[in-house]
Amino acid sequence: MRAVILAGGSGTRLWPLSRRSMPKQFLPLAGERSLLRQTVARVRPLVGDDVVVVTAADTGFLAARQLEEEGIDPADRVLAEPVGRNTAPAIGFAALGAVPDTVLLVLPSDHAIRDEDAFRRALAAAARVAAAGWLVTFGIQPDRPETGYGYIRMGDPLPGYDGARRVERFVEKPDRETAEAYLADGGYAWNSGMFALRADRLLEELGAHAPDVRAALEPLAPYADGARPAPRDLYEAVPKISIDYAVMERSDRVAVIPVDPGWSDLGSFDALAGVLEPDGDGNVVRAGQGGEAVVLEGTDNLVLADGRVVAAVGLSGTVIVDTPDALLVCARDRSQDVRRVVERLEAAGRPEVAGHRTVHRPWGSYTVLELGERHQVKRITVLPGRRLSLQRHRRRAEQWVVVRGTARVTRGDEVLDLGPGQSVAIAREQAHRLENPGAELLEVVEVQTGDYLGEDDIVRLQDDFGRVPGA
Amino acid sequence: MRAVILAGGSGTRLWPLSRRSMPKQFLPLAGERSLLRQTVARVRPLVGDDVVVVTAADTGFLAARQLEEEGIDPADRVLAEPVGRNTAPAIGFAALGAVPDTVLLVLPSDHAIRDEDAFRRALAAAARVAAAGWLVTFGIQPDRPETGYGYIRMGDPLPGYDGARRVERFVEKPDRETAEAYLADGGYAWNSGMFALRADRLLEELGAHAPDVRAALEPLAPYADGARPAPRDLYEAVPKISIDYAVMERSDRVAVIPVDPGWSDLGSFDALAGVLEPDGDGNVVRAGQGGEAVVLEGTDNLVLADGRVVAAVGLSGTVIVDTPDALLVCARDRSQDVRRVVERLEAAGRPEVAGHRTVHRPWGSYTVLELGERHQVKRITVLPGRRLSLQRHRRRAEQWVVVRGTARVTRGDEVLDLGPGQSVAIAREQAHRLENPGAELLEVVEVQTGDYLGEDDIVRLQDDFGRVPGA
Repeated sequence: MRAVILAGGSGTRLWPLSRRSMPKQFLPLAGERSLLRQTVARVRPLVGDDVVVVTAADTGFLAARQLEEEGIDPADRVLAEPVGRNTAPAIGFAALGAVPDTVLLVLPSDHAIRDEDAFRRALAAAARVAAAGWLVTFGIQPDRPETGYGYIRMGDPLPGYDGARRVERFVEKPDRETAEAYLADGGYAWNSGMFALRADRLLEELGAHAPDVRAALEPLAPYADGARPAPRDLYEAVPKISIDYAVMERSDRVAVIPVDPGWSDLGSFDALAGVLEPDGDGNVVRAGQGGEAVVLEGTDNLVLADGRVVAAVGLSGTVIVDTPDALLVCARDRSQDVRRVVERLEAAGRPEVAGHRTVHRPWGSYTVLELGERHQVKRITVLPGRRLSLQRHRRRAEQWVVVRGTARVTRGDEVLDLGPGQSVAIAREQAHRLENPGAELLEVVEVQTGDYLGEDDIVRLQDDFGRVPGA
Repeated sequence: MRAVILAGGSGTRLWPLSRRSMPKQFLPLAGERSLLRQTVARVRPLVGDDVVVVTAADTGFLAARQLEEEGIDPADRVLAEPVGRNTAPAIGFAALGAVPDTVLLVLPSDHAIRDEDAFRRALAAAARVAAAGWLVTFGIQPDRPETGYGYIRMGDPLPGYDGARRVERFVEKPDRETAEAYLADGGYAWNSGMFALRADRLLEELGAHAPDVRAALEPLAPYADGARPAPRDLYEAVPKISIDYAVMERSDRVAVIPVDPGWSDLGSFDALAGVLEPDGDGNVVRAGQGGEAVVLEGTDNLVLADGRVVAAVGLSGTVIVDTPDALLVCARDRSQDVRRVVERLEAAGRPEVAGHRTVHRPWGSYTVLELGERHQVKRITVLPGRRLSLQRHRRRAEQWVVVRGTARVTRGDEVLDLGPGQSVAIAREQAHRLENPGAELLEVVEVQTGDYLGEDDIVRLQDDFGRVPGA
């Protein structure tokens, strides 16, 4: 058995927490560990270390780091998609990298599950059905007439497999009235987007029902072991299609395991509030990073503070999500419209859609403290043993002040080791490199000065992470 | 005639815009100029440069700077109170500094007035009545049954003074029912806290009705010309009492000029929203400092963004006030409860009550960009020709990087001139000084490192602004 964890979503409905370069699955939204890490931890009793994460190329290093944090060697366990092609190609690509009769437990990484034991029992049951060649879905017991999910019409019990049933058909997101009828009927379940299926059977069914997808995946087979990045042009040639549409809705060997594990797709702030523990007034209030939240009266609020003081007075049913560079205040029952905010900001060219004020990189991270017209101040964190590329800038000078750890600085022909309180000046056009030779984190405050401060003013002379010059 | 402008309020109901070290009268809340500057500009057609501002000692330099920005030489025009004692001592202190028969136009600095011509006509009329020895108040025509203001019961017309009436009595803030009766009656006006009175008459009436106040003010007379700061112990000895309670409600020579100048005391965010221009959806939306506000649907909102992205979705009647370090989200009809938030934060010891992230000083300002455990990053702005004190720190080192203008740096026995991109390191215990010798602003990024970073780790060796060593 192998867990194939899908971590390619962009999660715009949870903006400004979730952003394109750091989508919700990598964030600790419901607990101290990220949703991806929780997904990995949840399935490990069944699969051990046999976990593969399929994610976007830009976030591959995040997936690798989070696997490492869960104690799993990430080598060859991250399949980076050069471009997103929806779920059928992602799962097919992972199937190509597996021994043919492996049962793949295909799990989105951005969901919350309360009853992990019930969930694992269902996975184990599904794996037995999948081993016999069935494509198995998980049908979540509805508890409300939800119009945001697709439904599964469950059919007859599958002989020999306790609890499993045939899928009679998949149905699209219903209107309110239909959803109420489904709920009353009892024979409908939510389509959770989780599957158990044998690698060879999935590829067979793709060949039968989506032969163009199957054919386009074939040249990607040499890259499906995760050892080398898949070429962008090959991946771009794969049709964009969901696994439901490509296979599940067309195959006649699809089964469903009904399950009620306290599942949430965390598809909105309303859903997120639903899985977090409220206080005595019915408000969910979290304050991180030295922030403080004061809620005066009101109930059913979700207040997430991060490093600042947030005060809410006389509000109910309101979502307040505060981040260092962007704030959302939203009526809770309008949570779905957050994506419209993202569209508006995208059209206005605001950078707060793409990334956070803290930007993660393979070597660590940086946080923009201030961007002025002719200066920029950043705090740079370098992981132990890592180093940035050897680089130079055409239009800016930089000053580095070490505030924590030890910096090894290459500047032209010199190599300097600097401790807290020590500083170094890098001139324009001067080749330089910042390295953390120590065992603790290195933190440096960088002050840039110049007439152009864009991230693209960088000439890379050498890089440990294979990034090309100028990129 | 002299304008005596009262600028001692703390304005906590407009937190987080208004803070103790930078209260609302110094902020550009309703226009491009601060409320204080607007108050000064409004009265100058009547008094020319004869303006005196009474304010707290800590904000005296702000009052002086804003007078200067209005083209008035601030020398001897700022009366700094070492401690707040309410309005009777503030006005009495100013009266001691005036030629006895001067008519003082006493004006709070934190109000908005729409119809300035009507206002000035009322002031001129009041000044004529005051010159004859009356204490004159301004009665604002009520347009709603407001329970937040005191009222004036207007009596008979004052013979010989067109439009002026005797005050029959002052009444405390009424309950709703009483306020409605006042409104229906038509003989009641709001007590606006503005007065016209002769300096000698005010001191006489204080002597008659509040002799303890009058006596305690006497030793302050030598300081009432504004040339030297008043000693704290003398000012502390003055009883804390309002001018209404000390004199107006007790004197029998009090007149009222009814006026309807579109007056607002800006006493809450609801009131502030009322004087700002709404957009087509009935929302007041302002985004400064590179911020952006997106309001999706909803009406009657007040959204003030400052440097960040603020998105509001599906809200109505909501106040969102975003500042760099603190956020308020408040039901508009609960605006009065903002002071309770301030109390809560004060009890929690949060610094966001006392000051902004940008702190103003006589020499310029500084902005805290980041405060870490062992480092702090600030941007320091020094006004042309000004300099900070010559100082040293026991527990922190500092690195300065010039990002704009020219810095003259004293470091031990050296004096260095530095331009943009140049930097200098100051060791612990090393005497140093930062000066702007140029004609444009100087901006420096300061990186502090050390095991203690408090503002009180400062030994002042010399200071242009009379600040004592260590303070």
